[in-house]
Amino acid sequence: MKPKLRIIPLGGAGEIGKNMTVVEYDGAILVIDAGLMFPENDMLGVDIVIPDIAYLLERRDQVRGIVITHGHEDHIGALPYVLPRLNVPIYATTLTRGLIEVKLKSHKLLKDATLHTIQTHDTIQLDPFTVETFHVSHSVPDGIGLAVATPAGVIVHTGDFKFDPSPVDGQLTDFATLAAVGGRGVLALLSDSTNADSPGHTPSETTITESFSRVFALAEGRVIVATFASNISRIQQVIDTATRFNRHVAVVGRSMQDNVKMAAELGYLRAPEGALVRIDQIHKYASNEIVIVCTGGQGEPTSALVRMANHDHKQVTLAPGDTVILSATAIPGNEEMINRTLNNLFRAGAIVYYDQLMDVHVSGHASQEEQKLMLNLLHPKYFIPIHGEYRHLVLHARIAQSIGVPAENIFVVENGAIVEFDEHGNGRVAHETAPASDVLVDGIGVGDVGTTVLRERHHLSEDGFLVALVTLDAHTGEIVFGPEIITHGFVYTEAAEDLIAGTKEEIVSALQKGGRGTALSAKLKDVLSQYLYQKTHRRPMVIPVVTEV
Amino acid sequence: MKPKLRIIPLGGAGEIGKNMTVVEYDGAILVIDAGLMFPENDMLGVDIVIPDIAYLLERRDQVRGIVITHGHEDHIGALPYVLPRLNVPIYATTLTRGLIEVKLKSHKLLKDATLHTIQTHDTIQLDPFTVETFHVSHSVPDGIGLAVATPAGVIVHTGDFKFDPSPVDGQLTDFATLAAVGGRGVLALLSDSTNADSPGHTPSETTITESFSRVFALAEGRVIVATFASNISRIQQVIDTATRFNRHVAVVGRSMQDNVKMAAELGYLRAPEGALVRIDQIHKYASNEIVIVCTGGQGEPTSALVRMANHDHKQVTLAPGDTVILSATAIPGNEEMINRTLNNLFRAGAIVYYDQLMDVHVSGHASQEEQKLMLNLLHPKYFIPIHGEYRHLVLHARIAQSIGVPAENIFVVENGAIVEFDEHGNGRVAHETAPASDVLVDGIGVGDVGTTVLRERHHLSEDGFLVALVTLDAHTGEIVFGPEIITHGFVYTEAAEDLIAGTKEEIVSALQKGGRGTALSAKLKDVLSQYLYQKTHRRPMVIPVVTEV
Repeated sequence: MKPKLRIIPLGGAGEIGKNMTVVEYDGAILVIDAGLMFPENDMLGVDIVIPDIAYLLERRDQVRGIVITHGHEDHIGALPYVLPRLNVPIYATTLTRGLIEVKLKSHKLLKDATLHTIQTHDTIQLDPFTVETFHVSHSVPDGIGLAVATPAGVIVHTGDFKFDPSPVDGQLTDFATLAAVGGRGVLALLSDSTNADSPGHTPSETTITESFSRVFALAEGRVIVATFASNISRIQQVIDTATRFNRHVAVVGRSMQDNVKMAAELGYLRAPEGALVRIDQIHKYASNEIVIVCTGGQGEPTSALVRMANHDHKQVTLAPGDTVILSATAIPGNEEMINRTLNNLFRAGAIVYYDQLMDVHVSGHASQEEQKLMLNLLHPKYFIPIHGEYRHLVLHARIAQSIGVPAENIFVVENGAIVEFDEHGNGRVAHETAPASDVLVDGIGVGDVGTTVLRERHHLSEDGFLVALVTLDAHTGEIVFGPEIITHGFVYTEAAEDLIAGTKEEIVSALQKGGRGTALSAKLKDVLSQYLYQKTHRRPMVIPVVTEV
Repeated sequence: MKPKLRIIPLGGAGEIGKNMTVVEYDGAILVIDAGLMFPENDMLGVDIVIPDIAYLLERRDQVRGIVITHGHEDHIGALPYVLPRLNVPIYATTLTRGLIEVKLKSHKLLKDATLHTIQTHDTIQLDPFTVETFHVSHSVPDGIGLAVATPAGVIVHTGDFKFDPSPVDGQLTDFATLAAVGGRGVLALLSDSTNADSPGHTPSETTITESFSRVFALAEGRVIVATFASNISRIQQVIDTATRFNRHVAVVGRSMQDNVKMAAELGYLRAPEGALVRIDQIHKYASNEIVIVCTGGQGEPTSALVRMANHDHKQVTLAPGDTVILSATAIPGNEEMINRTLNNLFRAGAIVYYDQLMDVHVSGHASQEEQKLMLNLLHPKYFIPIHGEYRHLVLHARIAQSIGVPAENIFVVENGAIVEFDEHGNGRVAHETAPASDVLVDGIGVGDVGTTVLRERHHLSEDGFLVALVTLDAHTGEIVFGPEIITHGFVYTEAAEDLIAGTKEEIVSALQKGGRGTALSAKLKDVLSQYLYQKTHRRPMVIPVVTEV
């Protein structure tokens, strides 16, 4: 049997192929990206979500390396969890490598990692794969897409892209290479579906500069701009606008400071002499000479902006006259935290601009017309929409169909699906799948929190628990201690004396009916659950503990 | 001292003056609305949020009645919780009364309630208040605003409104009465701020009919439309469109069926003979002859749409060829549930339309230009923005300022603030406040779940709990039972044997160091919390239980 080419999308938290893509041919594996997702609201207590790498660990000797498309968390954030278990070479462009190094350093993993710098237009040989890179514009510089030549054909992976006609760094998406790759023939295209429900074109990043200018022109006091720590382009726009308005920029927050320092050293962030000042120096300037850049665009509780909004930040106390720009869009699930932050900023008296009020943020992803352009440049035989929730993939599939890709040549798949191509270049979705569960990171535990623990946390979050303790004399069966009740998250115990007393009576009366061991515990659980539901219409986790001494 | 006129906004879950407004003059109280809010995501286990009526209960003999502006949940939903404690007369227009009756009936409270029907242009005398009503267009028919004449001046409360130029029921917002009231002089205007961050005008409800027509024209199978159970106007539009396309409409879900039946009987919903069919009859028709209307526009887990999306609905199994319209906009905090529902609808093969893709929903609230029109028609001396989060009130205040209301005559306040007017018509925010906490309803408990229980639920939701049980001999102090560990929501216990064993060792070693009673429990709690954090970087609720026999 001739070897087959396999493509496996991996990701997490409802998005497909977002955080990792596996390309496999004849016992060799190429990995694209290793990112993280933020947990969905019902993943209680979970810190982050990373892709399942079980498929790779079973084939660890075959993995040639990980090529990273760009330096955002959802493409590099899983590296600190992947590398300790699978320490393969990493290939990244200069700025992306810089962002990876900042991250690995903070996890004390940098010195054990093998990093290779590649160019935005480059060719790397990872036999049997020949990887040709092409630049794509996105909301961070130095992003790339990949054309992976394999003996079965060429696979193109766009990375996160848009066709920004006037990017902040001047670097356009590489039409020439895309057209050339398309001309040579593409077996399958994997393309960014994030904005498949947005008609038209995504506005250019430089429209933000105009909005910033309007806000800066009106601002009488300090200007505070919140964005992602890795959004180097947006930080560049803040510095440029600040400079034109004779303001100095202070960067607040460790991760953003590290990124800014690194990007400046690598030449990806340009600031005139004296433009950047330390946050502990801003008191030396008038408030209309200061701009502060910080994190908090998602309303993250520990971020600088949220602490400022709550009057809980060491160096910056918000005051009437301050202007705040929230230069971000909500990651689904974060809307409530963002709104709360906005309300508190308004309460502090700040003048606040957010996307509903002004164009202070644009998406980094291609809209429908740009997705069509990508498809038209590459005219692939097969199309696999990736990056997005299931609905985005379906909508992207329809876009592909609308410009002539046959429906049967489009594979809308879930994470872990194996798309297979034979030596004739015929594709299909294989019956078998790769492991692709959401791997949940909680504290230092990676993957130990699963459905059981989440179900328990959900139950506890809704109605709390009640432990009923009673100790019996092993010989007589008489109560020698208790019943005692321990309950949290169920009722306000100070005001629930009758309920607790009633619960104890239920226990005593159930004990009088006899029974021992497991049967008794099960009976107590039933009796108490029923009693508590009847009294409160709540269903706490009921745990009877009957001991005998 | 001359009596003062007092206005107190009440509400919940982050919105101000949304669910209830209190108007008080010289020992007489008029209440406007009694609505509920859905809990915010961090109000764990809470069913609904209702306004705090402590201020009213302390003055129960003074309350003349509750005037309801319209029949949406956030304006009538608290009645089943208010009436048992404060059974005062309710004044409502015909359809609003119908919606209230459906609700009170389901709570078995109808026969004890005193309901009075009023007209959309009416005058009711509730001494010392003369209440003049005026019709406002909104997303439900029969909505009103109120001009409340008091000896200290006229207060206008807009209710939820927009200036829809072509409402579904043909009833415009009542310009004539507004202009007349404005001409007589308005002391203070309380106006709907919901869309204060939306420039321009809100599109008319009838734009939806155009979108529905486009979707119906393309649909080859069944059409399923999800909206709120009380959205009578939208249901009318579905019936109208269905009739034009020769389709029959089946209403799914008890609350929506009850509302439709009531609205039809009252003449607020018009359906040609045979247009409505029962859901158990739809198999008699071809799929392109059927429209299903149901709830689920917010992705509510128990709603008909979500159950259809999850292949969990008794009567409707979604299939490729079905078309689904989500005719709703997300209440903040519901985005993730809605997205999940959309994804599952796409997975079921349905063609799905939602607001990002087509104008299948419009807001029921005035945008900035309409808010200005309301201010210009009434040109009040004082302005109190209500209905909205704090940021919306601030933005609405700026709109009022932009058209000439002096900043010092605008009161942006929180729930429970008392805005006071003296006999000269001079207003100020009083130093004292009324009780205005979010009253949380959980099961049959109203108000017993507060910060303590929520904090415990939050703690449990993040890291679960661990109860450490040990029984000592009262005389010797030796262990006669245990240590035993009960833990849920913390770690997957099947895979945490070492951790549990280690925890037991920590207990034994702590016991060996001596101590008794409370001090011992406190020490155990510290030792175990520290041990568990060090091993897992998680902080479960640790509860040591040391008993002596």
